[in-house]
Amino acid sequence: MSYTAKYFPTEPTEPKVLTETIPGPNGQIGIKSLSEVYDTRCTYFLADYEKSIGNYIVDSDGNTLLDVYCQVASIPLGYNNPTLLKVAKSDDMARVMVNRAALGNFAGVDYEKSQRNLLKFAPKGQKYIWNALSGADANELAFKAVFFNYQSKKRGFSNGFTTEEEKSCMENQAPGNPELAVLSFNKAFHGRLFASGSVTRSKPVHKMDMPSFKWPKAEFPSYKYPLDENKDFNDSEDVRCLEIVENFFKTWHCPIACIIVEPIQSEGGDNHASRTFFQGLRDLTLKYGAKLIIDEVQTGCGGTGLMWDHERYELSPPADLVTFSKKMQSAGYFFHDEELVPNMPYRQFNTWCGDQRLMMLSAAICQEIQDEDLLKSISTTGDYLFGELEKLQAKYPTYLAKLRGKGKACFIAFDMPSGTIRDSFLKKMKLAGVNMGGCAELGVRLRPTLTFEVKHAKVLIDAMSKVLSTL
Amino acid sequence: MSYTAKYFPTEPTEPKVLTETIPGPNGQIGIKSLSEVYDTRCTYFLADYEKSIGNYIVDSDGNTLLDVYCQVASIPLGYNNPTLLKVAKSDDMARVMVNRAALGNFAGVDYEKSQRNLLKFAPKGQKYIWNALSGADANELAFKAVFFNYQSKKRGFSNGFTTEEEKSCMENQAPGNPELAVLSFNKAFHGRLFASGSVTRSKPVHKMDMPSFKWPKAEFPSYKYPLDENKDFNDSEDVRCLEIVENFFKTWHCPIACIIVEPIQSEGGDNHASRTFFQGLRDLTLKYGAKLIIDEVQTGCGGTGLMWDHERYELSPPADLVTFSKKMQSAGYFFHDEELVPNMPYRQFNTWCGDQRLMMLSAAICQEIQDEDLLKSISTTGDYLFGELEKLQAKYPTYLAKLRGKGKACFIAFDMPSGTIRDSFLKKMKLAGVNMGGCAELGVRLRPTLTFEVKHAKVLIDAMSKVLSTL
Repeated sequence: MSYTAKYFPTEPTEPKVLTETIPGPNGQIGIKSLSEVYDTRCTYFLADYEKSIGNYIVDSDGNTLLDVYCQVASIPLGYNNPTLLKVAKSDDMARVMVNRAALGNFAGVDYEKSQRNLLKFAPKGQKYIWNALSGADANELAFKAVFFNYQSKKRGFSNGFTTEEEKSCMENQAPGNPELAVLSFNKAFHGRLFASGSVTRSKPVHKMDMPSFKWPKAEFPSYKYPLDENKDFNDSEDVRCLEIVENFFKTWHCPIACIIVEPIQSEGGDNHASRTFFQGLRDLTLKYGAKLIIDEVQTGCGGTGLMWDHERYELSPPADLVTFSKKMQSAGYFFHDEELVPNMPYRQFNTWCGDQRLMMLSAAICQEIQDEDLLKSISTTGDYLFGELEKLQAKYPTYLAKLRGKGKACFIAFDMPSGTIRDSFLKKMKLAGVNMGGCAELGVRLRPTLTFEVKHAKVLIDAMSKVLSTL
Repeated sequence: MSYTAKYFPTEPTEPKVLTETIPGPNGQIGIKSLSEVYDTRCTYFLADYEKSIGNYIVDSDGNTLLDVYCQVASIPLGYNNPTLLKVAKSDDMARVMVNRAALGNFAGVDYEKSQRNLLKFAPKGQKYIWNALSGADANELAFKAVFFNYQSKKRGFSNGFTTEEEKSCMENQAPGNPELAVLSFNKAFHGRLFASGSVTRSKPVHKMDMPSFKWPKAEFPSYKYPLDENKDFNDSEDVRCLEIVENFFKTWHCPIACIIVEPIQSEGGDNHASRTFFQGLRDLTLKYGAKLIIDEVQTGCGGTGLMWDHERYELSPPADLVTFSKKMQSAGYFFHDEELVPNMPYRQFNTWCGDQRLMMLSAAICQEIQDEDLLKSISTTGDYLFGELEKLQAKYPTYLAKLRGKGKACFIAFDMPSGTIRDSFLKKMKLAGVNMGGCAELGVRLRPTLTFEVKHAKVLIDAMSKVLSTL
């Protein structure tokens, strides 16, 4: 019996679209009313989360859509998952919620269990965890850990700071506030706060008008597809991009303390890179005394068929820090080297130091993935789905270009000929019963839950066939 | 019947200390074990949140302490508050938790209610809200709103950006990423991320080794106490500090887009300022085309006897943005001018756009404060407590210097002669049954819940009398 058959017995077998537009009349009234107190310009529709179930999201007009976007890739196990509802309704959860602890000062007696339950699912080679509240927060806290380590190493890990360091940091000046850089890549997305925004290079709207740090932007490989027919070009693309990175290490006006990179650049267009490229980054960071941060915010927690996508590259030594959020619900970074714990207390610190409630949810999600063998089933679905998409691509080569994500479960994307056509396609897909999301200028990305099965993939392919025939 | 008598019938009537040290033997074993997976260097003790109730926190050795620190000022209504437990255990809460929405794209049909329920408790004059996940996050998102507004105004609020702006921002360069500053104050604390860290000026440990923005640091008034005996000095202190601010507006190398200020600098030592000072800041921001952000992260949600502490100054016009977190559980900023909604969508945006679960908790907290008239009762307690502390100050003038917070409920602090004495005092207070917190170099700050009553204040005063007599 499949997971959804077992746990979502009332999940619909197909979408149901009742209105001529989405949002329909009810949704339009609701959005208008909401807009009095909230910016609704990005609202696609109002969802009815009480009625949504499994892989289907229901809107306020009763439209029932297969959801392959899933709250921007952040629903792990389907709507109203019974296992998670049980955890959410537990006395332990209520207690943690109403007595939210300052975990760094007054952790509860059950906190160790929460940490250990989550650490069980850490990427290979990672031994520790530090907790955050969002992907952007996780990345910025990871930068802090790296900067602390970089400067502490220069001090020989001595305790305390010099008077000059203390005085200058209070004035936002060196040496207390040194110039140190984080290298990121063209089209990267790592968040929208000020340091995370400085390494985000996806779209102008993500960072326009914000003061930023003057940090280097390298090039992420831009491969030709299908991969197996373009090996030589793609190999030389790796070499070219790694040379650019090395050149920054040699020439940047201040030390580059770390590289941050996504295993698959998601918001930036689902851009993939090879093991050679990632191991090359690992080698360069070692050569130049920098750290490697892998941003698994969108890729992590099983979406690509591995618990952590970068594990497929078996980096040696492992990445220094691995950040997570989204499907995990809680956020933070894993690390393996105790040196990344600052050598003095209260440096990596804030009032809450994370959210135990979310950690409990994370651990329950990871446990369910393991207990129910969901990595295997999502990979099976992905193999089927990729095959079907290849057939569609053969039929509509203009509309499904650069099909990518083969062997990475349902973490699949393709490009359409223009942003206008893509947007119109996504709109039509909603009316055909499927909620899908875009990425970058031309991309369509699939981000279903880990409970997405072949039967759901068939619904998706049917709807796509129908819509593509109308373009 | 008092609130605690009604809702916490099992709340202890006095502390109970069973071990010779805190943490005791159980706590020490627990902390050692936790330290294998977590940095415990800042851990005071492990709490037993199942047993903690009302104003009393219980540790893993069964020690029962009156808590006047309350998770760094972030427990609003006492441990295991029955009203909040009911909300936490509701089906609505579980549903929101396991179906965490990308609120900007797919808000639920019940989301408008969450927004409106929270907006009911907005500071006077504030009409809108934007949601964040922590105080630091709230402040940084407020900066973004200000920077977007500042640059949009320069463009005449036209849609779109120039090609030069788009190209340069992707390179982290002006004009797309302009140099704009936020002015903050000496001893301010606004968070520990990179932009929030740049305006934090409390202690070197809060910002050492982090790259920072080169933003101006003005001086916050440093008053002499008691206030009524030092009026002339304190008045001239306001004038001096406002002149420094104005001078920065005239001379800083880039535009100052906003001022951020706490109504009471909390982490920085519980430093108060006058209505004159705050209205002076309001006037200067208007004069120089800048915005005023009031950071109510620690002061907000009733702790000073007003829902929002800065309301006592009746600023005219109201502050542009007011940030919140901590006792509110959810975080974000209020604002009143629709111009602070970016004039294009997807600029103030991220995956989750807040956390509806926390907003529901916030609204329930505020509703309970209103329904149970807790601002009145905490003010009554504060008046009593301040009077008793004045008596203690008269007896131990060296140990309780600069007693401050009169008329601001229990948001009270005093200075001790040295950091060493302060730390030893806080340790002894724990063994005398009271969990207290420090601030800045010399300060002790009281941050009880809003359910702290005269009977609790008596327990506190008794313990303090006992400990002070041993110093």
